[in-house]
Amino acid sequence: MEGLLTVNNVWMMICTGLVFFMHLGFAFLEIGLTRQKNTINILFKNIFIITMGLLLYCLLGFNLMYPGEFNGFIGFAGFGLSSPLVDGSLDLAYSEGYTYWTDFLFQGMFAATAATIVSGAVAERMKLSAFMIFVIIYVGLVYPIAGSWKWGGGFLDEMGFYDFAGSTLVHSVGGWAALVAIWLLGARIGKFKDGKIGVFPGHSMPFATAGVLILWLGWFGFNGGSVLSADPELTSLTLVTTCLAAAAGGVASFIFSTMMYKNYDITMFLNGILGGLVGITAGADQMSPTDAVLIGAIAGVIIVLGVALIDKLRLDDPVGAVAVHLICGIWGTLAVGIFGNLASFDQFITQLIGVGCYAAICIVGAFLIFYILKVTIGIRVSKVEETEGLDQHEHGMDAYADFGLRQH
Amino acid sequence: MEGLLTVNNVWMMICTGLVFFMHLGFAFLEIGLTRQKNTINILFKNIFIITMGLLLYCLLGFNLMYPGEFNGFIGFAGFGLSSPLVDGSLDLAYSEGYTYWTDFLFQGMFAATAATIVSGAVAERMKLSAFMIFVIIYVGLVYPIAGSWKWGGGFLDEMGFYDFAGSTLVHSVGGWAALVAIWLLGARIGKFKDGKIGVFPGHSMPFATAGVLILWLGWFGFNGGSVLSADPELTSLTLVTTCLAAAAGGVASFIFSTMMYKNYDITMFLNGILGGLVGITAGADQMSPTDAVLIGAIAGVIIVLGVALIDKLRLDDPVGAVAVHLICGIWGTLAVGIFGNLASFDQFITQLIGVGCYAAICIVGAFLIFYILKVTIGIRVSKVEETEGLDQHEHGMDAYADFGLRQH
Amino acid sequence: MEGLLTVNNVWMMICTGLVFFMHLGFAFLEIGLTRQKNTINILFKNIFIITMGLLLYCLLGFNLMYPGEFNGFIGFAGFGLSSPLVDGSLDLAYSEGYTYWTDFLFQGMFAATAATIVSGAVAERMKLSAFMIFVIIYVGLVYPIAGSWKWGGGFLDEMGFYDFAGSTLVHSVGGWAALVAIWLLGARIGKFKDGKIGVFPGHSMPFATAGVLILWLGWFGFNGGSVLSADPELTSLTLVTTCLAAAAGGVASFIFSTMMYKNYDITMFLNGILGGLVGITAGADQMSPTDAVLIGAIAGVIIVLGVALIDKLRLDDPVGAVAVHLICGIWGTLAVGIFGNLASFDQFITQLIGVGCYAAICIVGAFLIFYILKVTIGIRVSKVEETEGLDQHEHGMDAYADFGLRQH
Repeated sequence: MEGLLTVNNVWMMICTGLVFFMHLGFAFLEIGLTRQKNTINILFKNIFIITMGLLLYCLLGFNLMYPGEFNGFIGFAGFGLSSPLVDGSLDLAYSEGYTYWTDFLFQGMFAATAATIVSGAVAERMKLSAFMIFVIIYVGLVYPIAGSWKWGGGFLDEMGFYDFAGSTLVHSVGGWAALVAIWLLGARIGKFKDGKIGVFPGHSMPFATAGVLILWLGWFGFNGGSVLSADPELTSLTLVTTCLAAAAGGVASFIFSTMMYKNYDITMFLNGILGGLVGITAGADQMSPTDAVLIGAIAGVIIVLGVALIDKLRLDDPVGAVAVHLICGIWGTLAVGIFGNLASFDQFITQLIGVGCYAAICIVGAFLIFYILKVTIGIRVSKVEETEGLDQHEHGMDAYADFGLRQH
Repeated sequence: MEGLLTVNNVWMMICTGLVFFMHLGFAFLEIGLTRQKNTINILFKNIFIITMGLLLYCLLGFNLMYPGEFNGFIGFAGFGLSSPLVDGSLDLAYSEGYTYWTDFLFQGMFAATAATIVSGAVAERMKLSAFMIFVIIYVGLVYPIAGSWKWGGGFLDEMGFYDFAGSTLVHSVGGWAALVAIWLLGARIGKFKDGKIGVFPGHSMPFATAGVLILWLGWFGFNGGSVLSADPELTSLTLVTTCLAAAAGGVASFIFSTMMYKNYDITMFLNGILGGLVGITAGADQMSPTDAVLIGAIAGVIIVLGVALIDKLRLDDPVGAVAVHLICGIWGTLAVGIFGNLASFDQFITQLIGVGCYAAICIVGAFLIFYILKVTIGIRVSKVEETEGLDQHEHGMDAYADFGLRQH
Repeated sequence: MEGLLTVNNVWMMICTGLVFFMHLGFAFLEIGLTRQKNTINILFKNIFIITMGLLLYCLLGFNLMYPGEFNGFIGFAGFGLSSPLVDGSLDLAYSEGYTYWTDFLFQGMFAATAATIVSGAVAERMKLSAFMIFVIIYVGLVYPIAGSWKWGGGFLDEMGFYDFAGSTLVHSVGGWAALVAIWLLGARIGKFKDGKIGVFPGHSMPFATAGVLILWLGWFGFNGGSVLSADPELTSLTLVTTCLAAAAGGVASFIFSTMMYKNYDITMFLNGILGGLVGITAGADQMSPTDAVLIGAIAGVIIVLGVALIDKLRLDDPVGAVAVHLICGIWGTLAVGIFGNLASFDQFITQLIGVGCYAAICIVGAFLIFYILKVTIGIRVSKVEETEGLDQHEHGMDAYADFGLRQH
């Protein structure tokens, strides 16, 4: 029915816009939680990711991720986009949920997200040129190939692995690369000194909070659009589970961190919301409201413990990206085997295998890219650049030219 | 027809997202109009409200507000949500306008709004713990019970009271609590001193302005979604009246305040826009464009007078919440009896009765909560905390760690 | 079919909301690229534009722009709006794509955009009162009359001139006025001194970046809504070409400016994105993905050259509005004759004629308004006001009251 395709496609286009908007959310969150002297650098990385990411996804990513019939591990349907217009009229056979163009754009907006996660983790010390090369390879090749294993109909899809909207395929894929990157990159100067953990307060809590609220809004599209149609029951259930998990994640993280640190820590509250969102993403269409609250609440607790764990491992993750996207991404993927419609021991094992496969490709892929960059052009800025800020050295500008700065 | 439900539901989900986004609008507006030293505190309250509000509305609010058959004053359909799935397939009998899930989520986003209004009024001096307890009781119990009187099919609905999208049910419900709160709480140190009114300039006009524009956008969903379907004539007429009232409110407030104070005051312009929006909300689907312009313009003038009145009463409302949400909420509710399709003397009297009933439950409810909190755990921070800022004392952080501050 | 009208209308209402949201994007972009001392002034202008613009468009603009049958040059269907309700029921004959109300509101949101473009160009030195009078005349009369020539079915429409979403009708119309304004207004104090070009760094790169990302999102509605229905193929193709042109514009501008200036300049990257968006706007529904990438990439290069050209002409355009909206607007309009479905020599000539006609009416109209204002009330603030900032002198306030400022 043409009318139904029209509705479905409207919903998918809106979701595409919402996922696009998440890039502002990520940018705000990342600058908010870091120091003002590196603000332009982070903004620059984020607009690079979304622009270059879309071009790459158009050039080859889409056809790597959805190669059609393939061997289940890697396939490629050719460069560029091809219109599926049948004699100039609408191709109803392509899908009932969206047109070819919407399909491409929705998936293209997802593609760039994985790289954004890394952007936050490596903030304040990574060389811009090296980061840009990483983005080109990771978004252009690793993400779509990994994605094809499940969403492209590859071997993990055959096995019954379930990842509704990308707890693993997007968030963990970004999270593994973030983990590899901060390990190879080392901590910021002064972060771990004489056995103590240095505190580098973020320079704008309003931007950090706005970032999280924008990301939550974006998740309406991220999860809601992953239904791949406007099916009323599935889309609306998905929005309910998504929002309840976000709420539960935030509240749980707030309560747990207040108990541990005797302090109303807004960054924990914010990351708890994100943890809940990442956690529900793998099974947002399969959970009851109660399941969603539980998954989110556990994610909120995981965030508090995860951030402490990363610190204990002497890894420096300025925005908590590994705890939010990797650890909660794994949690959400496994939760599909524990809660909701698909819960079973077999499913849990399958989910575990899926997590393992993505760990393998992402760790290997990210390590190769970062390691080769490290031994060739280098991945870390000089000490002077780091101390004085990347904005001045890489961009020749101040993010806030008119404001006086505080001495720390 | 399944296709029409799908369209309607898409519209309602989008409106849900837009109402959710209003929480960023409120947060930006409130921090923009207050001092930087209390920024984190306000942001924290706002994310607490939306997260805890959703959980409470899921646990009991939804079933208190829409109890089904009840005595018209109070009813409860039980804890938690229940899926209306009929044998796993779509329940077309639930509504033609939206699914059960969308219904819950749209109303849940509304619920938290009332508390947000209070957040702005009590800013810069209220104890966070006391505020959080207030939110839990007011959003969890008072708002949904009061709401059931009209939207749940209660006695005011029977009487013919009309409140399309909540000039009274949302904005005045928040506004009355704000009024009670600032009366019990007292003014900020230095606000009224030696017969003079102290001026505490807001610390970020960009955030304040962004807040208002985001709220305006959110009102597309707040009013547009209150049609409870995507009916083309009603939804689009509603958007037109909403936008014209906002525009007229802003322009009227700007002209009137410029005449009174010989100054282009941006905060009056902004609050005038909000006043117009609150004013049109009760009858947005019943007005012609001309009615909307008149209602909005009057609301804009009311704002200027209302803010001056609150000051004259020695009440301290940092963001103008009482003038915007309470006074313009009452104005909008009464305007349904004066302008548009429903205008009649009888309707005006009915509207007046409705306003009175909500005044009663909200004043009593809010007074009981705040008074008990005041005599038990206390509702006001210490003088030192207030002077040095709630961010340092309640949250142990600065909102803008890297910036130098100006001495006032 | 009523269902299809409902879907189409939902899409058009969403697009209307997105175009409205562009006003926050413009406001953020303009304040971000200018100095903090003029922030309130710019915000004030932007909220004046959207509120007064909507009221004017309701009063006369809509009926000037869409006069129905007319002589092709100027027509007027009468003051105010008139409901097309046929005996209280839905008028399916009005359009299958939207209701009368949606039609008005969507076009009304467009109307204000042209003036916003001027706001950025004249920032930091134009008298507020003069600017407001300009807005009233330009948005109230010039924009809708010029618009009627094409979108109202006027003589340029008859000739076959093509401008899908307003590269010329919106962006150049704003751009020509911006050019005239900055020529009559003169440069800011210190901009061109002793043969050197002064650099006035913008005061907030986060706001500038957020502005561009919000504008990009808004363009989903600006171009997507210009299909005037939710036609799945056309709307989704339009979103794809829009996003690819934005991405290509940004990347091209970044690469080209990095080669020229050996510096990762974020403002060039941002303006490149906008240039790509403006460039694709005239033919977004007529291009293939490859065409879109080429049009965007060329726009990105044009931005870098255009900004340099404006400087060389000793014109002072603080935000690059002329390069972005005028030059790329012309480029995009001509590109319809070079790329895509309509490409032909005849079409190119027609496009050129259209560009010329709009140049004529806009230059003449803007010149008359600004010149009369200049010789009567004056268009420029005093030297003291300009040096100390318009916020203090016109608004009696600081945009950031709590922050310490840096001495330049």
